[in-house]
Amino acid sequence: MPDKVTLVMFSGELDKALAAFNIATGAASMGMDVSIFFTFWGLNILKKERPVSSSKNILKRMMGILNKGGANKLKLSKFNMFGLGTRIMKKFMKEHKMPSVDEMIKLSKEMGVKLIACTITMGIMDVSKDNLIDEIDSFAGVATFLSEAKESEINLFI
Amino acid sequence: MPDKVTLVMFSGELDKALAAFNIATGAASMGMDVSIFFTFWGLNILKKERPVSSSKNILKRMMGILNKGGANKLKLSKFNMFGLGTRIMKKFMKEHKMPSVDEMIKLSKEMGVKLIACTITMGIMDVSKDNLIDEIDSFAGVATFLSEAKESEINLFI
Amino acid sequence: MPDKVTLVMFSGELDKALAAFNIATGAASMGMDVSIFFTFWGLNILKKERPVSSSKNILKRMMGILNKGGANKLKLSKFNMFGLGTRIMKKFMKEHKMPSVDEMIKLSKEMGVKLIACTITMGIMDVSKDNLIDEIDSFAGVATFLSEAKESEINLFI
Repeated sequence: MPDKVTLVMFSGELDKALAAFNIATGAASMGMDVSIFFTFWGLNILKKERPVSSSKNILKRMMGILNKGGANKLKLSKFNMFGLGTRIMKKFMKEHKMPSVDEMIKLSKEMGVKLIACTITMGIMDVSKDNLIDEIDSFAGVATFLSEAKESEINLFI
Repeated sequence: MPDKVTLVMFSGELDKALAAFNIATGAASMGMDVSIFFTFWGLNILKKERPVSSSKNILKRMMGILNKGGANKLKLSKFNMFGLGTRIMKKFMKEHKMPSVDEMIKLSKEMGVKLIACTITMGIMDVSKDNLIDEIDSFAGVATFLSEAKESEINLFI
Repeated sequence: MPDKVTLVMFSGELDKALAAFNIATGAASMGMDVSIFFTFWGLNILKKERPVSSSKNILKRMMGILNKGGANKLKLSKFNMFGLGTRIMKKFMKEHKMPSVDEMIKLSKEMGVKLIACTITMGIMDVSKDNLIDEIDSFAGVATFLSEAKESEINLFI
């Protein structure tokens, strides 16, 4: 049986997404089984570029606009500085030939990493399946996460 | 022997508390042994509604006012927007019949989840036992945490 | 074989550094093997007091100034309040005889804790080996982290 890695992707920031995908693709390249559970702000990483809240509720629509997500729109958790810090980081990433988050999503898929969206938080974050990218393998709740995590050598909450 | 889950609850925000208690109650309902160690800002989740710093030190009193805590007073880690974002999230939680944090604390207790307050950080966070809710099972330090964690299939730092 | 603890130190804040070093020194004192991987903002904890970006690029120099790091310059993740909150916390730490982060680094080294700097993120964070303290045991990438973590009883992402 291969070693197993299960990540909870709670955060939706550029730096934390990079950390998670570096670990995930690294583990997959070493022959490990990798699953990532996207929950809360982490769902933003899986959002399509222009998801539109279909809600009639003005508060939900407002939250949807603020919290729009998309792998290319993620911001740094620190020193975002109205986007300048994030731009600098992306420049450094290019110089060092580090792939962007959306490239890492594609790479992960090719390497067999499982991307799982948390159904419990999709409700409270007002995220529908239509708003999410097609690369997702499955939609599941906490029981599925726990079943995978208890068989894993490496569990991280990111 | 049942599988074991040990969580470090470092953060004191609404969204992270929900993530932790969803995992904890989910694991308990699957028959796992669950312990949560509350440390640093996570101690806020266990605070009574109106703890008062008895310190004569004005800095400590000020910090106590800013950092008052209470399971119903927790804020979102993002988009709090002077409380508006947090109010929207609580509305979504109600619509989706997700219990509030204080309901989840009670539920966890009924399911046998152990709630442990970290004595090392209680000192530096100026938190006394009187300031904390009665649902706490025990007060312990890092040695107790490590003894539990090394027997656990799932360890997460939240 | 002794139990093993592997920590990912992603964050560069005072409170999270204290949590990590409390766990690391606690585990080492119980005879466990401990490794800490410093990555992203966590590299700041290992920076010398006055690292200077040698980059000619003005953006990199600016980022280097903002993100200067050094174990004694870390700030709280919450209630920093232009340094006041951090000063209050350090005062509480002294009162409770908790060692400072730079003392904890020295203590960790004496106890055999391995401090490892992540080479992948050193590039994108514009950190050179010259900018980092001498206490570092090695420089390594994600493969080394994964090899250690899969043998560990306790893995945490901090």
